[in-house]
Amino acid sequence: MTIPAPDVQTHLSPLLTDLYQLTMLHGYWIGGMHLQSAVFDVSYRRNPFEGGYAVWAGLETVLDYVLGLRFDAASLAYLDGLKLFGPDFLAALAGWRFTGSMTSFPEGSVVFPHEPLLSVTAPLWEAQLIETALLNTLNFQTLIASKAARCASVIGQAGEGGTLIEFGTRRAQGPDGALGAARAAYIGGAAATSNVLAGQRYGLPVVGTHAHAWVESFEGELSAFRAYAALYPDATTLLLDTYDTLSSGLPNALTVAGELRAQGHELRAVRLDSGDLAYLSRRVRSALDAAGFAGVKIMASNDLSEEVIQSVIREGGRLDVYAVGTQLVTGGGPGGGALGGVYKLAELAGTPRMKLTGDPAKTSLPGAKRVWRGVDADGQSAWDVIGLAANLQPPQPGERVSDPSNPLRSSRLPGGLAWHDPRQTVIEHGQRIQPPEPLPALQARARAELSRLPEGTLRLLNPHAYRVSLSAELQASRDRLIRSLQGGDSEAG
Amino acid sequence: MTIPAPDVQTHLSPLLTDLYQLTMLHGYWIGGMHLQSAVFDVSYRRNPFEGGYAVWAGLETVLDYVLGLRFDAASLAYLDGLKLFGPDFLAALAGWRFTGSMTSFPEGSVVFPHEPLLSVTAPLWEAQLIETALLNTLNFQTLIASKAARCASVIGQAGEGGTLIEFGTRRAQGPDGALGAARAAYIGGAAATSNVLAGQRYGLPVVGTHAHAWVESFEGELSAFRAYAALYPDATTLLLDTYDTLSSGLPNALTVAGELRAQGHELRAVRLDSGDLAYLSRRVRSALDAAGFAGVKIMASNDLSEEVIQSVIREGGRLDVYAVGTQLVTGGGPGGGALGGVYKLAELAGTPRMKLTGDPAKTSLPGAKRVWRGVDADGQSAWDVIGLAANLQPPQPGERVSDPSNPLRSSRLPGGLAWHDPRQTVIEHGQRIQPPEPLPALQARARAELSRLPEGTLRLLNPHAYRVSLSAELQASRDRLIRSLQGGDSEAG
Repeated sequence: MTIPAPDVQTHLSPLLTDLYQLTMLHGYWIGGMHLQSAVFDVSYRRNPFEGGYAVWAGLETVLDYVLGLRFDAASLAYLDGLKLFGPDFLAALAGWRFTGSMTSFPEGSVVFPHEPLLSVTAPLWEAQLIETALLNTLNFQTLIASKAARCASVIGQAGEGGTLIEFGTRRAQGPDGALGAARAAYIGGAAATSNVLAGQRYGLPVVGTHAHAWVESFEGELSAFRAYAALYPDATTLLLDTYDTLSSGLPNALTVAGELRAQGHELRAVRLDSGDLAYLSRRVRSALDAAGFAGVKIMASNDLSEEVIQSVIREGGRLDVYAVGTQLVTGGGPGGGALGGVYKLAELAGTPRMKLTGDPAKTSLPGAKRVWRGVDADGQSAWDVIGLAANLQPPQPGERVSDPSNPLRSSRLPGGLAWHDPRQTVIEHGQRIQPPEPLPALQARARAELSRLPEGTLRLLNPHAYRVSLSAELQASRDRLIRSLQGGDSEAG
Repeated sequence: MTIPAPDVQTHLSPLLTDLYQLTMLHGYWIGGMHLQSAVFDVSYRRNPFEGGYAVWAGLETVLDYVLGLRFDAASLAYLDGLKLFGPDFLAALAGWRFTGSMTSFPEGSVVFPHEPLLSVTAPLWEAQLIETALLNTLNFQTLIASKAARCASVIGQAGEGGTLIEFGTRRAQGPDGALGAARAAYIGGAAATSNVLAGQRYGLPVVGTHAHAWVESFEGELSAFRAYAALYPDATTLLLDTYDTLSSGLPNALTVAGELRAQGHELRAVRLDSGDLAYLSRRVRSALDAAGFAGVKIMASNDLSEEVIQSVIREGGRLDVYAVGTQLVTGGGPGGGALGGVYKLAELAGTPRMKLTGDPAKTSLPGAKRVWRGVDADGQSAWDVIGLAANLQPPQPGERVSDPSNPLRSSRLPGGLAWHDPRQTVIEHGQRIQPPEPLPALQARARAELSRLPEGTLRLLNPHAYRVSLSAELQASRDRLIRSLQGGDSEAG
């Protein structure tokens, strides 16, 4: 069954890659190795934002890209001009298609360090070429979905039905930075975006208010408020701080709220964009309530982050809508800026491969692998075990498993867990085997999985570390390969 | 004279904007205000990375975008579906073109907080629509060009002719994040990129080595090195750390360097990707030199930043090529992640406008403005003064000027400075008036301007603060408007 990929990223090119991928492809092709079957895994080593998890995002974007990838004439002409590639190789590239398979956590899943999030099984030159674009997309969208989940979970914990929206286009890292961020933020828990192109492209709800310039364009704030309310009498959010939030914006908004009601409409919301949000939101809430406008929401949009949101809530702030910009779309903050996802060769021509290193956390996990997730009697996720793909037997109670970054630290698996493999085949022999999932389904998955995490895993700082272990078999295979490489290497040296 | 814009960003859409820009346009249009002449300025408040300057980048990308902007049928149909806009307004949007003018610092200029970097003079609905895309592009590219300049200046100060290259595509924030970063990094001082698409699109030099996967794909590191050297005998860089840098990678590289020389070729470089770069580079340099390979360069690519580069150099590291990835393409580090550039209404229908606020640093500068840069007898840039556009008279010795963020702090301008206006008109009546400058010219401008800064301004941390002041006239105009708004507001309240 072939499902046509939506036309999302057709402006992307096979040249969206590092030069070394192409020179290596050239070498594999010349050496006759390019069709050897390879397995590569995408994984990361540290949770973003010093948190307890990541929300997996970018998968559909990647599938569209990989399945649509072709070397067009202009790309081949450019490569020819680099004087690095022979004409026969370029002719071979013209026939390049992705014919391999991919297994992945479904998009929106909650994932953890060291896990093979996406495994690619394909002829070596197919799997190698796509590395850069895969990592570019998955690293970024997973970073942003995780940031959104952190913001949404803090808002959710306040238990007052607050809403997260994404307002960051002007501070995003380029146009696709804004688009990818809007998509990923939605998966992680944002209800809407201000980015109209993201609305068109991904079907996301779009929202907005007005700017300071709107107010400055009129003779007086009140006339500006009246004009906007006349334009959208049932959907007006008034920005209060162009001149002064409490002495000017608030009384003018109350006037307009009253005028709207007299005409049978209700002011939707007011927006705070500067100052002490906890204090101002309490003052604005009391004034609105006292004037009979308990239904008018309060939105804030002043350099918010999950930490700022948390402190505003703790200080009794009365915000209903959190419009997060810069920090959300750039994944800013400690442990942010970029997810350090990597793409490591695990197997070639049926033989496990790995990268050694002095740092055990950076030594890759050899061989084709499988992930098992253990769920307890209450439905809570409790333990993930990374095992060999060839072993279809779930982990057993009492089995000794080890820490991925410290093989000397091992534990015995508890009983009472039901194990399942959360990953799914998403491409088989170069074809999608399931239709793309709608974004609301991805958001719902993320929300459901986050709600099933052990207590403390959602904590912003110093969270509970979710258990991820290597099966005894995988650890043994890794140990064997390390010994053989260390032995073999000194001979080859 | 019309210069056709290169086809760089045609996939961009007029919908790359915040929803509120379109609802405000709707309101201006309904109110008959949309053709009032407006002046907006782009500026920022704090230098990125807690540094002493920014390198202005993204201008050409913006000009292409603005001049190509049209509402196509699909965009209008999408907007119609939002049920926010009437058919007459949508019909008017179909005829939307940018017919205004823009004045800007030339791309690659060194710029400072509070300065009007780009001023847009256009009918209100033209100037308002483009805000989001302008800020998205300029904030990001200026951030990255500034980061590259910081890296390049540290390398340059070492005085050994080291080279900066950009290697970050896989960690960039989406595809355009990678492309924009490659372009901006080049302007700021990177010599090349690994991103092939950036090479094709912008004509940048592309470079690369090979990956760990290449080594793992062969039976032994030595065979892998030999195969790569056979492929590119005059352009081989060998990655040393797949198994162990000093005990495996280095001796194997020496073997291959000898074999290449025997065939009349020279190994180009070796690459370090883990471990202590200062220590390893000294060890590798001695070994290469001792074996007669003084010409083989050493490249490093392990989570570099300007601070890491500086400490490696201070510790006697012997690196020739600094391949910077994540930190460069995401503009990471303290004070990084995003440049907080804003776009503020300065004048409408001939009247100065401003946003008031309790924080003087966030109060905008009213009126159409002009920048003067004062250069001393040695050709060093010494002082920038922001004045009124209408005043063509340069600042005078002894003139009292004030601090943009603290009007109570004033100084008298020294004598002996030659003043010029560094900004240029780049679009007049909707047409480019100069051809796009080639990227090497922008890089050269940045390098030259950086070399003319006062001592200490380039320091990474706690730099000398370059002097930027408001002319007495501008300060007086700002004071008058503040008084009138504070008075007028309480009446309008």
